[in-house]
Amino acid sequence: MNAEIITVGTELLLGQILDTNSVYIGKTLAEAGIDLFYKTSVGDNVPRLKSAIEAACARAEIVIITGGLGPTVDDITREAIAEVTGKALVLDASLLKQIKSFFEKRNLLMTESNQVQAYLPEGAGIIENKNGTAPGFIMAHSGNTIIAMPGVPHEMHAMMENSVMPYLYEKMGGTVFSIKSKTLHIGGMSESAVNNKIEDLFINSKNPSIGILAHWTHIDLRLTVKTDSQKNADKVLNELKEKIYERLGGNIFGEDEETIELAVSKLLMAKHLTLSTAESCTAGLLSYKLTNMAGASGFFMGGVSVYSNEIKTSILGVNEKVISEFGAVSAETAGEMATKCREKFKTDIGVAITGIAGPEGGTQSKPVGLVYVALDIKGKVQFFENRFGTGREIVRSRAAQVALFKLYTALKNS
Amino acid sequence: MNAEIITVGTELLLGQILDTNSVYIGKTLAEAGIDLFYKTSVGDNVPRLKSAIEAACARAEIVIITGGLGPTVDDITREAIAEVTGKALVLDASLLKQIKSFFEKRNLLMTESNQVQAYLPEGAGIIENKNGTAPGFIMAHSGNTIIAMPGVPHEMHAMMENSVMPYLYEKMGGTVFSIKSKTLHIGGMSESAVNNKIEDLFINSKNPSIGILAHWTHIDLRLTVKTDSQKNADKVLNELKEKIYERLGGNIFGEDEETIELAVSKLLMAKHLTLSTAESCTAGLLSYKLTNMAGASGFFMGGVSVYSNEIKTSILGVNEKVISEFGAVSAETAGEMATKCREKFKTDIGVAITGIAGPEGGTQSKPVGLVYVALDIKGKVQFFENRFGTGREIVRSRAAQVALFKLYTALKNS
Repeated sequence: MNAEIITVGTELLLGQILDTNSVYIGKTLAEAGIDLFYKTSVGDNVPRLKSAIEAACARAEIVIITGGLGPTVDDITREAIAEVTGKALVLDASLLKQIKSFFEKRNLLMTESNQVQAYLPEGAGIIENKNGTAPGFIMAHSGNTIIAMPGVPHEMHAMMENSVMPYLYEKMGGTVFSIKSKTLHIGGMSESAVNNKIEDLFINSKNPSIGILAHWTHIDLRLTVKTDSQKNADKVLNELKEKIYERLGGNIFGEDEETIELAVSKLLMAKHLTLSTAESCTAGLLSYKLTNMAGASGFFMGGVSVYSNEIKTSILGVNEKVISEFGAVSAETAGEMATKCREKFKTDIGVAITGIAGPEGGTQSKPVGLVYVALDIKGKVQFFENRFGTGREIVRSRAAQVALFKLYTALKNS
Repeated sequence: MNAEIITVGTELLLGQILDTNSVYIGKTLAEAGIDLFYKTSVGDNVPRLKSAIEAACARAEIVIITGGLGPTVDDITREAIAEVTGKALVLDASLLKQIKSFFEKRNLLMTESNQVQAYLPEGAGIIENKNGTAPGFIMAHSGNTIIAMPGVPHEMHAMMENSVMPYLYEKMGGTVFSIKSKTLHIGGMSESAVNNKIEDLFINSKNPSIGILAHWTHIDLRLTVKTDSQKNADKVLNELKEKIYERLGGNIFGEDEETIELAVSKLLMAKHLTLSTAESCTAGLLSYKLTNMAGASGFFMGGVSVYSNEIKTSILGVNEKVISEFGAVSAETAGEMATKCREKFKTDIGVAITGIAGPEGGTQSKPVGLVYVALDIKGKVQFFENRFGTGREIVRSRAAQVALFKLYTALKNS
């Protein structure tokens, strides 16, 4: 089976937004072994969208369109599909009811323009949108299947997962080729250090292949295999994965969707440990990340953002003398912050971050990017000095990531 | 003048990488006033790339292709263009010399496969690549201009800037059209409510045109104008902007790069007010956002993440009776949190958020997505009840955004 993607929106052509939708759809189709030969972006223009749909229908069985299903006049996908398929747009009463109830549940006023979202080309099957007002739809058209979904990413993702992929799997029946990937997340190493450790695997491994991707905060290795069975895919991926673990195991903190905060959460819950945070330059980023997962209340008690020195003392009880002797950005102050926070919040662990995020505020001996992380685990304090370069956002996100990675390592080895 | 972009690479179709190249090129063309009606991504396959190039040539004067110029067997752009244009691939001796010197300068071994990069379709003009081994080229083909560049972003950017854009500007001759955009950020309204207020402008305003884009947290209106002078562009954009301000002024919190946290920061600094935060479900997101800008220490003193009820009482001093009578997620508790935090941190303003981020924890009367925001501005307390739907990340980001928007509105009107 083969497919094409059309993403709709003038903002895509003007370079105003990144097209993440076609990345998600492309990946999802690849995992199902559905071939994708082209993807096209087109602006909010009916004739041009029509001709893109016609060209796609001439080449591919399945045409997946995202965007242009909103309530405003520049949302033209319904109209273009109706014209291509020669169907009228008709009001679907059940859909109108759903949209009305969506607004009622949220105490919002439904406007007249939202009514257009209840019109669909005659004969189209509705794809329910549980997260928004724009429904999607599936319709047959002379041997092709046209699938339309809204461009809002989380709405589209849910519709792909719950409706479109089950529909396509059923349509395919029998044997399915499969492309499968596994991503390993690596902390505490540079891209070239990772590369040096596994260069031979990189060069010699073709299927599965290895891709390396450097983020601000960590390194990803992506292993990709194509086989005709799910079982075999898992087997060869696992063999390569094991080889990489032998070399980099201590630095791999997670796989696929597993973030560093999730890895830390699991360890905290398994060990029945509680945690609190004291943050200066990151001002809440660490506590925000630690509570990204449902169930965080099982281990996270709370935290403080102590932005000024006065607050470090008055709210957290950090010893003024430590700050005046060593400075607010010092291993000593970080340690005091971790300990006082652990005591105040009555937790097993206190994690502290203090540093200079910049762009101003650095000195020769304490430059922008200098960040101290301290862990107090049941009274045992560890410090870590880091130099993260420049860029306020980069320094802050690296600081939170390193605090989590150091905590992960400490918990794993304890 | 109009153009199309073709990006080449199977990894683009498999969803393994984001296509940032076409975003860069689209933006650069838009700024030069060159229309872009389509962009297409195609895999490493000669017949399919050929047909994409042919389709683009039939629609647009300029066809810009990136990717597929590397030294390996899956780099097929040279071959596809040679076939479309009916030209042979010929070795360019000067190019071979350049490639050799690139390797020598870096003390790297030039492999045989790099030689293929010195072959170009007969009659093509070379675009020098100072940052890599893959040269680009420009060639005429029955009324069209085909431009090929490598897919490595920084190599392509330099070639666009130094060679391709000067070439296109010269080709356009005399008057250069310019596309200019302005984005207005709107809080506290749904997409359809915004649409209703300005539907006539939407429909009647063609140049500048209006685009609407809904985010999780706010709505953007993007005004785009195409004119033959920079001065005129600013004038007509401003005229339309004024009309929109007349209708939506109270909800517009910023333009272009101005985020809600930046707008709030400016007001706090102008009014010499200090701020502290008390967060339950957002657990630090609000304080993190408030400190995104350098200089935040001028107004932000600190904050607490009070995740458990016990901590709300022990750390912040929230009255236990208020929590037990009204619940942790209530206007009353939010108000207590704002006031206690203002007192503890000795600030002019305390901002509090308490809510149910989900996915678990909701009840019929207090469902997931219910969030209370409270502001205590010098002792005067305001509450806001919100129902944000589901999705933990969505609820949390909307909660922080609404707190900032309510604070913005309160500060602006005070």
